[in-house]
Amino acid sequence: QAAADDKVKAMVITGAGEYFSSGNDLSSFTNLKPGVTMEQMAADGNAILRRFVAAFIDFPKPLIALVNGPAVGISVSTLGLYDQVFASDSATFHMPFSSLGQTPEGCSSYTLPRIMGLSAAASLVMFNRKISAQEALSCGLVSRVFPAASFAAEAGAAVEEIAALPRQTLIYAKQLFARANQSGAARHQRTGVQPAAGALDIRGLLQCCGEIFLAKV
Amino acid sequence: QAAADDKVKAMVITGAGEYFSSGNDLSSFTNLKPGVTMEQMAADGNAILRRFVAAFIDFPKPLIALVNGPAVGISVSTLGLYDQVFASDSATFHMPFSSLGQTPEGCSSYTLPRIMGLSAAASLVMFNRKISAQEALSCGLVSRVFPAASFAAEAGAAVEEIAALPRQTLIYAKQLFARANQSGAARHQRTGVQPAAGALDIRGLLQCCGEIFLAKV
Amino acid sequence: QAAADDKVKAMVITGAGEYFSSGNDLSSFTNLKPGVTMEQMAADGNAILRRFVAAFIDFPKPLIALVNGPAVGISVSTLGLYDQVFASDSATFHMPFSSLGQTPEGCSSYTLPRIMGLSAAASLVMFNRKISAQEALSCGLVSRVFPAASFAAEAGAAVEEIAALPRQTLIYAKQLFARANQSGAARHQRTGVQPAAGALDIRGLLQCCGEIFLAKV
Repeated sequence: QAAADDKVKAMVITGAGEYFSSGNDLSSFTNLKPGVTMEQMAADGNAILRRFVAAFIDFPKPLIALVNGPAVGISVSTLGLYDQVFASDSATFHMPFSSLGQTPEGCSSYTLPRIMGLSAAASLVMFNRKISAQEALSCGLVSRVFPAASFAAEAGAAVEEIAALPRQTLIYAKQLFARANQSGAARHQRTGVQPAAGALDIRGLLQCCGEIFLAKV
Repeated sequence: QAAADDKVKAMVITGAGEYFSSGNDLSSFTNLKPGVTMEQMAADGNAILRRFVAAFIDFPKPLIALVNGPAVGISVSTLGLYDQVFASDSATFHMPFSSLGQTPEGCSSYTLPRIMGLSAAASLVMFNRKISAQEALSCGLVSRVFPAASFAAEAGAAVEEIAALPRQTLIYAKQLFARANQSGAARHQRTGVQPAAGALDIRGLLQCCGEIFLAKV
Repeated sequence: QAAADDKVKAMVITGAGEYFSSGNDLSSFTNLKPGVTMEQMAADGNAILRRFVAAFIDFPKPLIALVNGPAVGISVSTLGLYDQVFASDSATFHMPFSSLGQTPEGCSSYTLPRIMGLSAAASLVMFNRKISAQEALSCGLVSRVFPAASFAAEAGAAVEEIAALPRQTLIYAKQLFARANQSGAARHQRTGVQPAAGALDIRGLLQCCGEIFLAKV
């Protein structure tokens, strides 16, 4: 919708409350609907997850994340697909997948090593290390950090500056960036075996999306 | 010429005055030559720009930038094609393309995300953010920063160390680096639609080249 | 062996003494075996080197380096193939290849620019710059630095945390990482002309391997 809307220059995603996103609700995975096998549910979840991630990859305008507080799970996995990530100094970044028996998702095994190097990315993605906003800035996951108290105002002003740029130029620039960067993630997702990605279920995903507040610039 | 000269080990590019390069002169674009359409001039400019950038990509010996002061426009876009970038602490890096209605050039949408991550690169390339020498060091665009007062001497000494290495070994090493890195930029430039790249004109480019002082090691 | 062993979750490589690894013994290259030409010895050395490097690339479980002290030569070249690199603050990283007339090896011309950017990687790989543990952390080669005095204990504890994660999940995660990252290095090594790589000889390599202490988690 925002992709097609002629007035929209960029998409900003931020959290509605204290958290950026608290991740998927995995407990819903234990509640099977009657007549649906675990395998079917996993396959459905996998398909939905891929479409969800593809929506980030294919978005034709600049995609901006305002990480207003702690970010967990898929909201961190997908950060490498954004064109711009600003964080509050109260933000933390955590992907506790391995400890839950889950594999990397959201193309994080592709995007994050390209942003911060293999060792730092594996710390986060494979080995569950939680990092601070300052560490995220140092390793390039985030490009600017603002104090929590003034985050809304300062990040908002930075977004306004972006919104003042010519719309068609931003779309062309994003096209060049996407071809050189996000397109590799698309290939990674398309050709990849994502062994345990099916472990994410539909309800969890919808909840995750519902949590995210979409603001159009 | 330097590429073929047997005595040349590397190419060093630096600015002649206080600036590294002040970018193209866009005003010349408003002066059409009689009998030349805007479209023709844009197509010519595009072809020249591609050859200019290809000269960086294809250079068979180490390419070293000494950023002696503020760098603007295409002199920043092409920095990701150098093998080595040293900067004075008086240097700044600025690509005000989007605000001028221009798209990224010099393969910057390809090279800079690989150097500093997508978010930091988009700040610079898409959103016109000007950064300091220290920030350029932190994000990996530059590998060493020297004080402005002693820049010529210290950067010169660092170049001398490089120049003391065996010539043929440097050429082999560059060949391996180019195949693994610059070759991707070449592919990006060859296959890419660079929508508004035609907005750069011939006179501007020649002026830009004229500004650059070429020193052979 | 560790790759196939069902009880092994990850491979940890560290140095046995004060050094992580002091590199190959190039002097052995001057002692030709009777009846073996220099060309034959170089070709044999090249084949062994490629198999040695391929063993890093193809390892199907997380590969962890504990850089306990100064690291020289091929032990640094191959660091970009590890999933996790921890270093003591007494560690240094040095690849004096160019000054010895040797070209980059261990896929370092591919992996290191992707980790730290082209300029920082060329400093290390092409121009022999020695860096400290702190610099290695800043540029992303290393993900954590511990004090030398407590390195064994602290790095050991960090490894224990990794070893507590589910084995099959780590293997799946490594599979995704390898496909998105190490596989590119494999392609680089397979298709590449490595002009002077033959300069590494068999005895040197065996000595290098012998120096490394392999601990299974």
